[in-house]
Amino acid sequence: MLNATHDPSLTSWVASANDGLTDFPIQNLPFASVKKRGGNALFSIGVAIGDQVLPLAPLAKLNLAKGLVQEALQCCQDSTMNRLMTLTPAYWSALRADLSRWLQTGSAEEAILSPLLFSQSDAQFQRPCHIGDFTDFYSSIYHATTVGKLFRPDNPLLPNYKWVPIGYHGRASSIDVSGQAFHRPKGQTKAPNATVPSFGPCKRLDYELEIGFFVGQSNVLGDSLTMETAEQRLFGICLLNDWSARDIQAWEYQPLGPFLAKSFASTISPWIVTAEALAPFRVPFTREEGEPEPMPYLDSVHNQKFGAFDIQLACAIEAKNLPRTQLSHSNFKDSYWSIAQMLTHHASNGCNLQAGDLMGSGTQSGPSLEQAGSMLELTQGGKVPIEFENGQQRIFLNDGDTIIMTGHCEAAGAVRIGFGEVRSMVLPAKA
Amino acid sequence: MLNATHDPSLTSWVASANDGLTDFPIQNLPFASVKKRGGNALFSIGVAIGDQVLPLAPLAKLNLAKGLVQEALQCCQDSTMNRLMTLTPAYWSALRADLSRWLQTGSAEEAILSPLLFSQSDAQFQRPCHIGDFTDFYSSIYHATTVGKLFRPDNPLLPNYKWVPIGYHGRASSIDVSGQAFHRPKGQTKAPNATVPSFGPCKRLDYELEIGFFVGQSNVLGDSLTMETAEQRLFGICLLNDWSARDIQAWEYQPLGPFLAKSFASTISPWIVTAEALAPFRVPFTREEGEPEPMPYLDSVHNQKFGAFDIQLACAIEAKNLPRTQLSHSNFKDSYWSIAQMLTHHASNGCNLQAGDLMGSGTQSGPSLEQAGSMLELTQGGKVPIEFENGQQRIFLNDGDTIIMTGHCEAAGAVRIGFGEVRSMVLPAKA
Repeated sequence: MLNATHDPSLTSWVASANDGLTDFPIQNLPFASVKKRGGNALFSIGVAIGDQVLPLAPLAKLNLAKGLVQEALQCCQDSTMNRLMTLTPAYWSALRADLSRWLQTGSAEEAILSPLLFSQSDAQFQRPCHIGDFTDFYSSIYHATTVGKLFRPDNPLLPNYKWVPIGYHGRASSIDVSGQAFHRPKGQTKAPNATVPSFGPCKRLDYELEIGFFVGQSNVLGDSLTMETAEQRLFGICLLNDWSARDIQAWEYQPLGPFLAKSFASTISPWIVTAEALAPFRVPFTREEGEPEPMPYLDSVHNQKFGAFDIQLACAIEAKNLPRTQLSHSNFKDSYWSIAQMLTHHASNGCNLQAGDLMGSGTQSGPSLEQAGSMLELTQGGKVPIEFENGQQRIFLNDGDTIIMTGHCEAAGAVRIGFGEVRSMVLPAKA
Repeated sequence: MLNATHDPSLTSWVASANDGLTDFPIQNLPFASVKKRGGNALFSIGVAIGDQVLPLAPLAKLNLAKGLVQEALQCCQDSTMNRLMTLTPAYWSALRADLSRWLQTGSAEEAILSPLLFSQSDAQFQRPCHIGDFTDFYSSIYHATTVGKLFRPDNPLLPNYKWVPIGYHGRASSIDVSGQAFHRPKGQTKAPNATVPSFGPCKRLDYELEIGFFVGQSNVLGDSLTMETAEQRLFGICLLNDWSARDIQAWEYQPLGPFLAKSFASTISPWIVTAEALAPFRVPFTREEGEPEPMPYLDSVHNQKFGAFDIQLACAIEAKNLPRTQLSHSNFKDSYWSIAQMLTHHASNGCNLQAGDLMGSGTQSGPSLEQAGSMLELTQGGKVPIEFENGQQRIFLNDGDTIIMTGHCEAAGAVRIGFGEVRSMVLPAKA
């Protein structure tokens, strides 16, 4: 639902929010757990505006607001968003409305808020919330089909795929925000011709280009969600790099799924773009001709009309002697399952989703090769190297490689908004 | 390593600890998060002695101890064990030594501690700690083989099984302690002859008889463990019923493993028996003739000599018109992988295990049918009903069924200790 905060004519007294290029115009207003680098500042919740951060912790004490907004601002004094996430959309929306008003050109609050701002280049981020559980879905049929072909040439897309939003539980403890640098994992692998496995550094290290989405509110164990109530559970969206060790995965994954191939690191972008900020970029949830209709518990009129999110995603690499180079791009609107469907399915057995839970969309790939969301797909299973202009090649990632993912939304009649970036680097395996 | 706390001649001034039948003699001393039912008491850490609970929160204020023990007692004022679990074995051991001394027959502390005791029949329990991540292993080769035959008749035991301690990430939010009653989950299933799946209450609801083990201390992301340091990470052991919806599992589990088939409920026993209390029941970790040796990172002299735990497990059912009836029994010493191997493998990729993480052993089945740790195995995949003396039958669980799991340890020259029980009940599916 569009409202005054989406008005494309709005500008901010923070000049950098109005340049038409920033990810963070006044129509966005994403949240992060952030502090100014150095000094004694503690982490608290801040909002991005242009190239600046507005920390919200001081606002609760300024008596700028009352009612829902004052309650929400009090939650923003915490170092994590869990309390804010536990509230309802009415609170999130009221807070957004006031933030939009206060940051608008000509606002009376400019004099009060302006001294609180600090530059994003001075910002230090941490995980936005305590992540109780991390679930990763598998919502791109293009990714599932391409990868399925590599692992099971005779049986690429399993019979359940078009009925079940496939997902699995991931590891929460190893998730960190953009800037994460991690050591190449070691593990057991077995070469195709070897008689026994060996143990050592991963040889097929890969990224996965994903959307992350955070649960707001909680449902009690035993209660399921409807597609309508699931929509209300979406607090916001970030970018997620679900690092994957393909050789470890190939050897370990049967019969219980990925385990150590994924649990060494997962990196998210620090800014959470709220569901409300994304309203102008909701598009119909469509299925190709001939695909089965979603089962009744995974269907709704709202989902048919606005179930998908038009989010353009891109992934780049940067390394020594290799300037930032785009690897691929895709769009979350090509996902076979919508966020509401994934949440509804997740709670359909009574599983209690809790405020702060993180869900991954699974690798977002499109129908063409340059829309592949992982190196496994781009190199056709490690068979065809990627060639860069300077002559460097990659089949999988080298030590020292940095992967940078970005996302943004554009729509007619709306101001472009973005997600910032998630950037992380591969360090050599520990001795 | 045996010490004075294991002395079989020790008795307690709590008479019920000395009857030779209790799970909780003075040689055990397990911890729980517990309070006296009713009143305003808050949860804190307590220790079991005979049929009584000694709450530890008041002890920190009594100046009974100093140094490590006083620090450990301060952690016991918390409602969860996470702070206690973050300490090192030196703290846990010192606390145990003093508790043993204070509770011994003739102890000068009897007069001080005796008024603090309350009956376990008046106790209310909660989850012992915040469980950051829950990992479930698959360590019984008998279970893996039997279940493998049902799901993949031509390929029961996958080639990785004898090399990799197979595990997967589970759902932490739906874990609760003994007494949990949960609604039969609903979900998508597909009958073998159906062309499309259907959605409704699970028809093949099952239990899984498991050991749960809690991580103490934490390792930093990127650091792995050795078999020796992994031994130091074991805080203690409980019983775990890993409820499973077999029909949901069969349809959803490929290619990423169990998801909603497991995340509706998992139940643990409230008392955590410490690694030190289990020292008299450590036995050699053995492999049958012809089995491969563990890879070097999963092997140690200690593991060869004392890697396994001799814990006798049993599972019973109770229902309307069906008095408590034993279903099966098995022993954790038959596990194909030891706890140290599971922890070492888990951290081998640098995954950070955190104090309070719960690991499940996977269903513990033995080589014979009556040692099957699930109904799926006992009924040979739902084909052969279990017949009870009163004429009732089960293929899978009915609404109203209660499953009770128990465990205990016996060894020559040691006093028998037990785990109490984990009991939970199936309620009808929600309308």
